Amino acid sequence: MLNEFSLIEQYFLNNKKQRPDSIVGIGDDGAVTRVQPNHDLVTVTDTMVNGVHFDESTPPRAIGHKIVAVNLSDLAAMGAEPCWISLALTLPDADETWLSEFAAGLHEICQYYDCTLIGGDTTRGPLTVTVTAQGQVPAGEAITRSGAKPGDWLYVSGPLGDAGLGLDMTQQADMATGPHLQRLVERLYYPHPRVALGQTLRNVAGACIDISDGLLADLQHLLSSSGVAADIELDKIPLSLAMTETLSQDAAYKKALTAGDDYELCFTVEEHNRGRLETLTAHLKNKPICIGRITQLREPAIQFKLHGEVYELPLEYQGYNHFNNSVTAKD
Amino acid sequence: MLNEFSLIEQYFLNNKKQRPDSIVGIGDDGAVTRVQPNHDLVTVTDTMVNGVHFDESTPPRAIGHKIVAVNLSDLAAMGAEPCWISLALTLPDADETWLSEFAAGLHEICQYYDCTLIGGDTTRGPLTVTVTAQGQVPAGEAITRSGAKPGDWLYVSGPLGDAGLGLDMTQQADMATGPHLQRLVERLYYPHPRVALGQTLRNVAGACIDISDGLLADLQHLLSSSGVAADIELDKIPLSLAMTETLSQDAAYKKALTAGDDYELCFTVEEHNRGRLETLTAHLKNKPICIGRITQLREPAIQFKLHGEVYELPLEYQGYNHFNNSVTAKD
Repeated sequence: MLNEFSLIEQYFLNNKKQRPDSIVGIGDDGAVTRVQPNHDLVTVTDTMVNGVHFDESTPPRAIGHKIVAVNLSDLAAMGAEPCWISLALTLPDADETWLSEFAAGLHEICQYYDCTLIGGDTTRGPLTVTVTAQGQVPAGEAITRSGAKPGDWLYVSGPLGDAGLGLDMTQQADMATGPHLQRLVERLYYPHPRVALGQTLRNVAGACIDISDGLLADLQHLLSSSGVAADIELDKIPLSLAMTETLSQDAAYKKALTAGDDYELCFTVEEHNRGRLETLTAHLKNKPICIGRITQLREPAIQFKLHGEVYELPLEYQGYNHFNNSVTAKD
Repeated sequence: MLNEFSLIEQYFLNNKKQRPDSIVGIGDDGAVTRVQPNHDLVTVTDTMVNGVHFDESTPPRAIGHKIVAVNLSDLAAMGAEPCWISLALTLPDADETWLSEFAAGLHEICQYYDCTLIGGDTTRGPLTVTVTAQGQVPAGEAITRSGAKPGDWLYVSGPLGDAGLGLDMTQQADMATGPHLQRLVERLYYPHPRVALGQTLRNVAGACIDISDGLLADLQHLLSSSGVAADIELDKIPLSLAMTETLSQDAAYKKALTAGDDYELCFTVEEHNRGRLETLTAHLKNKPICIGRITQLREPAIQFKLHGEVYELPLEYQGYNHFNNSVTAKD
């Protein structure tokens, strides 16, 4: 069996191209990096636990990809350029097959977004993966959750619910067929954080959050941080073809509103910035979709409309909560 | 039971005084901080796992203290000023007593070193604690492991082995008495990272490492990074009064050389910087102790001398390794 140090060396030390702003990398007491002048540092952390965020059926390559993707999604929501990641990896044993697949998934997404693995810690214990990612943003231009104002337009960056539907397909044998299976499971296992869009939204979006726990749950955080409420046009919520061809309309909207793991962005734009948003995103294949509008604070904070009428959502439309709900592989 | 968000809010959101360079803290997708102009960012990560790095008998307050202390010790070894920490906390349940004690230990050491908790993630699963700490250092002044040169003098910052002896005392009923018990267990549970000394060593030390896995293991890393070897005078290795009054001389040196968790610094100083080191550390209660000298690379890389003669260490003097040794609460 490999010892701790050669294990780290073999899979993580030889990590390809380093960013030139990474001065000291893996193998010292700490990593030394250099933030650009007149830029702020943005730091995010996400953990994935075996049996909670993934299970034995999840490919190790997907775990390596996703732990980076979920962190880059948080950086994207802040408008930050991803730069460096640190990996805390707790493993029951030094399984070389698992490690090589996990490392491949992690390195691929890091290379793609020019993000350098600068350090971390490897320990023995129940399988748990934590990444802290660091990015930078021009000073004062980070986008927070708290900048939404009444009258702002509310957008999402792409179709919702696909990852949740992909999860159902991996768990329910009777759903695990159909032409969309592969695409939906890809959305679950290999999410693409909206890195470029996040940076485009600097000075355009008033507030932004990434949708990791479901639109309802995450929008609620944005609204409560900003002290506002929102009207949403239910039929404006974007659904993929895979979604509409697989589920009934009701089931599809429920999935889109409550399922997590999509890693799309939800953001607000002031009236006078709508044209700017359109210009800046004209080249994108998936353009942001306007789903509603911010209002003065009121209860309930989120109100739905369908064909101009107020539409009452069933009560069970709620986001996932780590400590109240049963533990599933959902989040 | 608290839900995830109110749990985080209750114990971690209300965290006292924030550094003025923390612009956006807990409660957004990411934290925004500002590194001083002409400074480099230093990032370190350490994980502590239940059943490996601590056990049921460890006070939660000590776990909260120590996960910060071990990270600040890494920053100290780089010469960095500690600034911000991110906490990834995986918990089997939301035990309020445990959380309040853990948070108290964590906040106390953060306050003491003016380090702000800027964010993190809380997940359900087997008890595991990861902290990523960020510090800053004047550009180009970070101290690495790789700067030792033949002829440099080798120092440690204080007595070694006390934490290991403290661990023995918590595990062996027959040792758990004596006048030194409390002090040694304090050294194990509440280590004090050498934060001020680390910053003093900028432009003075050629290479530096913190002693977390035992002097032999950590010095070996420093030597191999620098491509050098070292002669150590066995009787120069500092032992505390508690150590010499508790163990035989042989057992005391073995503990000092191989036990982990002391979080002292081991560093090298060029001949012409020795006076500067003495001046800069004259005010310290515990002054650095010179234990030997760096030599040209040779095998074995570490050679001991006692009263001028080469001294052969028994073979079992080896550092702890996470994946080769049996799992204990030792490291």
